[in-house]
Amino acid sequence: MIRRVAFVVAVAAAVSAAASQARLRDDVRRWVASNQSQVVRELVELLAIPNVAADTPNIRRNAEHLRGMLERRGFSVELLETTGNPLVYGELKVPSATRTLLLYCHYDGQPVAPASWTQKDPFTPVLRTGRVDQGGRDMPDIAGVRTFENDWRIYARSASDDKSPIVALLAALDALKASGQAATSNLRIILDGEEEAGSPSLVPAIGRYRARLGADLMLIFDGPAHSSARPTVVFGARGIVTFDLTVFGPKAGVHSGNYGNWIPNPAERLASLLASMKAGDGRVTVAGFYDGIAPLTPAERALLDAVPEDSERMLKTFGVAAPTPGFPKLQDAVQAPTLNVRGLVSAHVGAGARTIIPDRATAAIDIRLVKETRAQDLLDKVRAHVRAQGYYLSAGEPDDEVRAKYDRIARIDVNSSITNAFRTPPDHPLARAVVSAVERTWGAAPVQIRTLGGTVPIAPFIDALGFPAVIVPVVNFDNNQHEENENLRLGHFFDAIVTMAGILRM
Amino acid sequence: MIRRVAFVVAVAAAVSAAASQARLRDDVRRWVASNQSQVVRELVELLAIPNVAADTPNIRRNAEHLRGMLERRGFSVELLETTGNPLVYGELKVPSATRTLLLYCHYDGQPVAPASWTQKDPFTPVLRTGRVDQGGRDMPDIAGVRTFENDWRIYARSASDDKSPIVALLAALDALKASGQAATSNLRIILDGEEEAGSPSLVPAIGRYRARLGADLMLIFDGPAHSSARPTVVFGARGIVTFDLTVFGPKAGVHSGNYGNWIPNPAERLASLLASMKAGDGRVTVAGFYDGIAPLTPAERALLDAVPEDSERMLKTFGVAAPTPGFPKLQDAVQAPTLNVRGLVSAHVGAGARTIIPDRATAAIDIRLVKETRAQDLLDKVRAHVRAQGYYLSAGEPDDEVRAKYDRIARIDVNSSITNAFRTPPDHPLARAVVSAVERTWGAAPVQIRTLGGTVPIAPFIDALGFPAVIVPVVNFDNNQHEENENLRLGHFFDAIVTMAGILRM
Repeated sequence: MIRRVAFVVAVAAAVSAAASQARLRDDVRRWVASNQSQVVRELVELLAIPNVAADTPNIRRNAEHLRGMLERRGFSVELLETTGNPLVYGELKVPSATRTLLLYCHYDGQPVAPASWTQKDPFTPVLRTGRVDQGGRDMPDIAGVRTFENDWRIYARSASDDKSPIVALLAALDALKASGQAATSNLRIILDGEEEAGSPSLVPAIGRYRARLGADLMLIFDGPAHSSARPTVVFGARGIVTFDLTVFGPKAGVHSGNYGNWIPNPAERLASLLASMKAGDGRVTVAGFYDGIAPLTPAERALLDAVPEDSERMLKTFGVAAPTPGFPKLQDAVQAPTLNVRGLVSAHVGAGARTIIPDRATAAIDIRLVKETRAQDLLDKVRAHVRAQGYYLSAGEPDDEVRAKYDRIARIDVNSSITNAFRTPPDHPLARAVVSAVERTWGAAPVQIRTLGGTVPIAPFIDALGFPAVIVPVVNFDNNQHEENENLRLGHFFDAIVTMAGILRM
Repeated sequence: MIRRVAFVVAVAAAVSAAASQARLRDDVRRWVASNQSQVVRELVELLAIPNVAADTPNIRRNAEHLRGMLERRGFSVELLETTGNPLVYGELKVPSATRTLLLYCHYDGQPVAPASWTQKDPFTPVLRTGRVDQGGRDMPDIAGVRTFENDWRIYARSASDDKSPIVALLAALDALKASGQAATSNLRIILDGEEEAGSPSLVPAIGRYRARLGADLMLIFDGPAHSSARPTVVFGARGIVTFDLTVFGPKAGVHSGNYGNWIPNPAERLASLLASMKAGDGRVTVAGFYDGIAPLTPAERALLDAVPEDSERMLKTFGVAAPTPGFPKLQDAVQAPTLNVRGLVSAHVGAGARTIIPDRATAAIDIRLVKETRAQDLLDKVRAHVRAQGYYLSAGEPDDEVRAKYDRIARIDVNSSITNAFRTPPDHPLARAVVSAVERTWGAAPVQIRTLGGTVPIAPFIDALGFPAVIVPVVNFDNNQHEENENLRLGHFFDAIVTMAGILRM
């Protein structure tokens, strides 16, 4: 009986919370509808300040401008000086809040090649009625527009990546305030000025500013939402380490007629070596490569299966008839580390080809890491595998002595820039809280991504801080991120304000 | 008893023939010693006429000059016009001769890049006291030299390849004449003006000039003698066919993070495909690749074993610890066809590498052919092998329909320039006659090469003529053939006159 009462109470509380969030959604949407032109103007003003990380005077202008934007919302703001560009840092305390959220966005953008853009200047935002490559027309004057349609787009560098999430976040606070509400957590915000340059100053800054960076959860607003346009929550990202694997042949290419069959061919040996690393189904056969990766729990399985995957469309787009047999589903494929040959070279192919046995053959390889697999460990396993195939691993160019001693000689050159994976357990209470907040706000569960297949430069920062992190990507997936004609679909932008308001009230 | 008498007679005849050839050698050597400056002058004059195949006015000057040289020896000469450069043709009938030799040399040379040479002009011959890279000094005035040392060298384009054999051959006739002897065969000589351009007009010329080209044996004077400097007779050369093998991946490179493990990787598939074509010992596993190649007979085995092979030195030079396990001996290695990966490319390696699954991967491959293996047949077998690995072979770039239908798509682009192998049976009576003539002249068996590992452009001509051919290479192996600083060691040149005189008396 007691338990039944508790259940009824809990259900009632949930229903009530859901109802409250639904009201929130309506309130915020109404506010956005009434304040569209003001919110878009704030974005356009921010986009008008050039923000390539190397352009330090303009980066400083961005930082100062952002300081003003944050201060207008009551944040106490500091520009945290680093070895590189300043971090814009703000704090907003909420009476009675028992937890702190660290909100992360970045204010720098990718370099631009203006000649490739369909507008004069990537830092003079242009409003269009749709995608420019699908007939979207230029609207003459953004400032004069009162109401914006959801399919209209703002074209400018960083429109999506990653200035609009900053503006949406502050608009969400404005909307909450307008409806007499406030965030339910203490807020700390950190705006990175070097993300597109790999965030080199972020981890070093922790030592100096650790006290300001403490929180219970980091929320990262960056990247595109799922292509279904549904709200999206991401719990992790794969890491990466890259290396070149070279197999040596004769000191210089030798005549393939005079010596063909007799002198071992390094291109063929590299081919065999690479072939030895994968089974026919595409799974890695390097001993221990998947060690530590437990089978998915039923809950994890359900999480992956719930991701809407339009595999057919993707395969058609790529012109591929079938995925790798060992990884038939994309969501499963990204749960495992990869060993990917991203490039091959040996002598020449095509018009430049000569009839030789080449002197060497090299494969450029990237390993995508997951939470359970660390870069150095997998590199050691690859080295052991190469040795087990009979190779001597040379540190540099093999000298005559090494050449005389070893029949098979290879070299592994590891790129020192290693990013490990991060993954917050999807059932972590704070991760659940974010998901629930989004679900209650929209009345439907968000797309939940256990891990991105790609790598985010912020992973080492998450690693170093030591508390959980969740990515909430909000912009349209077709935003031309990093390319010319970067753009933001306004419907995504307006919905982001609602999603963020929901999360701020979580 | 009768047989014994016959044996004694035969031995006596052989002893007598050997004695006669030994006298011949001494006569020719004496003649050469007395006529060095005249022979070298004739060579120098010929070398002074530029002879790149594309330089048609100078090619014509060479042809006219050669006409004069042949006419002075009593040849009836014609310039046979072809679709390209003229063939210089001469005929010298010998009363009572019962067989005809077709003597082949070429008078064109490789293109030159004078800036890379250590002399001002590759067509102004320079006499040096040794190899220029080993301290050989320039002799100021070739014309003023009375006696030449064996280790001195003439530096000029075509000094070795292939003008000196022409001059040596005519000097051999002069030497025979001076000692009151003549060739024992009717002679036909054909001097090719396009060998370094692949002899494109040679086979087409047969239709027009067949009557002039009939003979019992072709003797080809081209290429370097064995590195031991011993007289060398070669019975064949491998052929060649080249092709590019491409494995297709996604239409364009895709992100190795977002899609790694899921989208099949064409570089890895190419590696596996190449690996499937060779066993661990380096032998080709394509079904039927070695079909028709009979095991060596004891005589063939003995022939191969008699070739002086300085494997240790060669391996050391190349910086290779051990040969391919399946072909431990070089002479055996060249008796079999090859399947040699001469180049590999897929996306990029090194600084230009990107984190992608490449769109394609290509291997440039050459197949060296032997007499028993024809190009089209081996290509068909490779195609069958690729198909047996599950590949659809696309004729061109695969379209969307092909991409949707086939998981594995490859393409084979065959270079149309195919040269089949030639090999005259080493026990053919005329091949034996050449070997015997050289052996009797020098008092020692020549190095006998069952087949060169490389390919000679003249092979299709031999094929089309249909009578046996033997190569007698006479110049030094370190002649920088095809490169800058081409040179001729005079000791080799003078000995070539003796060898050729012996063969002309065979």
